[in-house]
Amino acid sequence: MGTNTSPKPTVGFVGLGAMGFGMATHLVQQGYTVKGYDVFAKCLERFAEAGGQSTKSLSESATDAEFYVCMVASAPQAQSALFDAEDAIVKALPQNATLLLCSTVPSAYAQSVEKQLADMGRSDVFFVDSPVSGGAKRAADGTLTIMAGGSDAALEKADALLKEMSDPEGLYVVAGGVGQGSNMKMVHQVLAAIHILLASETMGLAARFGLDAKTTFDAVVGSDAWFWMFENRVPRMLDEDYFPGVSALTIILKDVGIITSMARHVNFPMPLSTTAEQIYLLALAQDFGSHDDAGMVRLYHPPPIHNNANNANNANNANNANNANNANNANNANNNDSTKTTQNLTHVLNLVRGVQLCAAAEAISLARHLHLDLRQFHRLASAAAGGSRMFSSKGADMIAAQEGQRPENPCVEGFLKGLARAVDAARGVSCPVPLGAEALSLLTGVDRRHGSNGIVYDYYGLLY
Amino acid sequence: MGTNTSPKPTVGFVGLGAMGFGMATHLVQQGYTVKGYDVFAKCLERFAEAGGQSTKSLSESATDAEFYVCMVASAPQAQSALFDAEDAIVKALPQNATLLLCSTVPSAYAQSVEKQLADMGRSDVFFVDSPVSGGAKRAADGTLTIMAGGSDAALEKADALLKEMSDPEGLYVVAGGVGQGSNMKMVHQVLAAIHILLASETMGLAARFGLDAKTTFDAVVGSDAWFWMFENRVPRMLDEDYFPGVSALTIILKDVGIITSMARHVNFPMPLSTTAEQIYLLALAQDFGSHDDAGMVRLYHPPPIHNNANNANNANNANNANNANNANNANNANNNDSTKTTQNLTHVLNLVRGVQLCAAAEAISLARHLHLDLRQFHRLASAAAGGSRMFSSKGADMIAAQEGQRPENPCVEGFLKGLARAVDAARGVSCPVPLGAEALSLLTGVDRRHGSNGIVYDYYGLLY
Repeated sequence: MGTNTSPKPTVGFVGLGAMGFGMATHLVQQGYTVKGYDVFAKCLERFAEAGGQSTKSLSESATDAEFYVCMVASAPQAQSALFDAEDAIVKALPQNATLLLCSTVPSAYAQSVEKQLADMGRSDVFFVDSPVSGGAKRAADGTLTIMAGGSDAALEKADALLKEMSDPEGLYVVAGGVGQGSNMKMVHQVLAAIHILLASETMGLAARFGLDAKTTFDAVVGSDAWFWMFENRVPRMLDEDYFPGVSALTIILKDVGIITSMARHVNFPMPLSTTAEQIYLLALAQDFGSHDDAGMVRLYHPPPIHNNANNANNANNANNANNANNANNANNANNNDSTKTTQNLTHVLNLVRGVQLCAAAEAISLARHLHLDLRQFHRLASAAAGGSRMFSSKGADMIAAQEGQRPENPCVEGFLKGLARAVDAARGVSCPVPLGAEALSLLTGVDRRHGSNGIVYDYYGLLY
Repeated sequence: MGTNTSPKPTVGFVGLGAMGFGMATHLVQQGYTVKGYDVFAKCLERFAEAGGQSTKSLSESATDAEFYVCMVASAPQAQSALFDAEDAIVKALPQNATLLLCSTVPSAYAQSVEKQLADMGRSDVFFVDSPVSGGAKRAADGTLTIMAGGSDAALEKADALLKEMSDPEGLYVVAGGVGQGSNMKMVHQVLAAIHILLASETMGLAARFGLDAKTTFDAVVGSDAWFWMFENRVPRMLDEDYFPGVSALTIILKDVGIITSMARHVNFPMPLSTTAEQIYLLALAQDFGSHDDAGMVRLYHPPPIHNNANNANNANNANNANNANNANNANNANNNDSTKTTQNLTHVLNLVRGVQLCAAAEAISLARHLHLDLRQFHRLASAAAGGSRMFSSKGADMIAAQEGQRPENPCVEGFLKGLARAVDAARGVSCPVPLGAEALSLLTGVDRRHGSNGIVYDYYGLLY
């Protein structure tokens, strides 16, 4: 299989879940010998059916593997698979093997792997800290975004395999060695964690306003309020289908936990990420953990949310019926309805814009704090799951301001006012908008700190 | 009835709910002729049984009433009863009557009442803006806290009646005229709204830690983390009885809405009040609206929470059983359990302290913004439902700092560290702590703004 006919090396692979299965089978299709392992027998069966070599132990998957990809769900799982298990991978890896840790883990954990390798006399292993982003489909297509940190030698060794799994534009070598790949992924997940909840908050508010769900979807996607997570998650809401979860709530909860835990330890404020995490925890307490994260919309509005379309149609039909009897009144009613709909849609868009402005500031602030290349982060996140039109435009302005440039239109006044009206309108329909309200607190705080009467602030003021 | 035998005037009274019924029947017992009205027939019956004169309309309750007390639930209800209803109170009030608006309403609404009286040529009415606090029991005992604003003439007219309903120490004449009474109440409700949720957050976290509920209750009440709302609300949690609600969630939700709505309109950040409101709205979406607000604990931990006591006992019993077989191990287990319990209890107390520190700063900042007398506010709130030991001590320090004094120990470093550890530990048991997390974001933000290496900040830095 595959177009490349040159002999390809053997790759060991652990973690054949949604993402890992796609990555591993893609490598099989590209002509690699892939020795896969997973604790679930079902995954192993599926992998064998897809042409992979399923193995019976971690050590079997690692034996004679010139390359090894670790794609388990978390740092504790990685620690067990790599080092602590009786049949641990590292014990079986051949000399000078190249080990790619693709799981999303705390940066400190990735660094500890390097140290543990050295401590056990396995500094011969070329280790790359290379978390990925893009979802199961792009994993299977070999078009992931990959953020790779490591020594020059390790990065050179891993280069071909990393390119095999990533989009031609999607491989980002992150300066600073092991740990910085994971930091880059973490900063990207700041946007992801906020935007996933924002998709639910947006559609929940629309439903509370009685807006048609599909109309709202089209309006957001076609405007400057577009964001990747919205376009990706909302179709599941339109289907009202949160089972089986494509992206379980527990996954983004784990990722946001890495962010806030790190932030607490270095005393760095991450208010929107914190808000998102708290709402995720409240949902977890309602047993939403295994549901798709798009199901968070049910915290804001009882299902179904798409029925509002029918409600709106019914309302219009009722108006049309009136029309026959009293044309003027009915027209007024229709005009009022239409004005109200337009206003409410504006509130929804302003909610999104306000939250995204603050999300961009929060992510860029953290990237700066971690000494990441801000332009590389901006390029990466704009093209990945954390992307949004606001991040592309206003995020670029914020980074330019960091570099001493003055963006053309640095006013956040409009965002503040629009967001305040949106939160006000949400309160009028008793709809929770925790992200919107938190972003408003932040923008208002910036406002206060920059002088009592001023209402024009540059983006720099949003960065903490 | 009553000890005072001098003739007492006639008082009209609308709003015979939990609070109003207590206030009105107390006046009856003190020898007043009280003509009561309520839209609910049940309330009228109950009032007649208690010796009051139940009337059939608003105007009947107001006819010949030298004094009138309006104790309905909200500003829209007050507007209807006072002005807009066909049988509206003001239309029937005798010349030079004294009108007390005791409902919790936006300050702007209280001011609009004064204006409407003037506009309809009823400036003869002595109007007092006099919201109350203290709950149904203190209403019935005539020991409420009352915050009264109005003209000197109106306050003099109302003085005896206000004293009849309030504690000897509980009548606060608020300078600044009509509107400032409501502002004072609103600022008090900042503490109330945060503390009510904090009571649930505290007990929810304790339950997640597996701490015994009663032990936790005693520990908080006996420490510097004591707060009035905790002592008042937690017994309902220990009983696991949230029906019939003594304080429906919708009441505090209405009050916090007055706060955040005002804050949005004057562009003032109220981050903890905002967080509390958002969590209340999420609970409302789960149909908790009519439940007692103490039932919010169920968002954090599934009921029952008091069963943890049994769990803890069972755990101890299991340890004791082991004891018979292996004394050393069992002792270690007991010691570990006991250390863990102590640590977790410390986390719970630190959560409370951190949130209360920020709640005090938020309330005092708003009071300052509204040009209220800060020392009067501090005296009032310390003795009312918003009181806490933290507010009494650290709130006083904040006010002293406002006045240019330097408090003895202005470090918030300890609070920040303790809170960070508590939020971390809560995350470890997947417990939501939205107030704790928000307070941590605030304290961390203060930390960042006051310099990169400094970790000692004065309270002034907490005020926005």
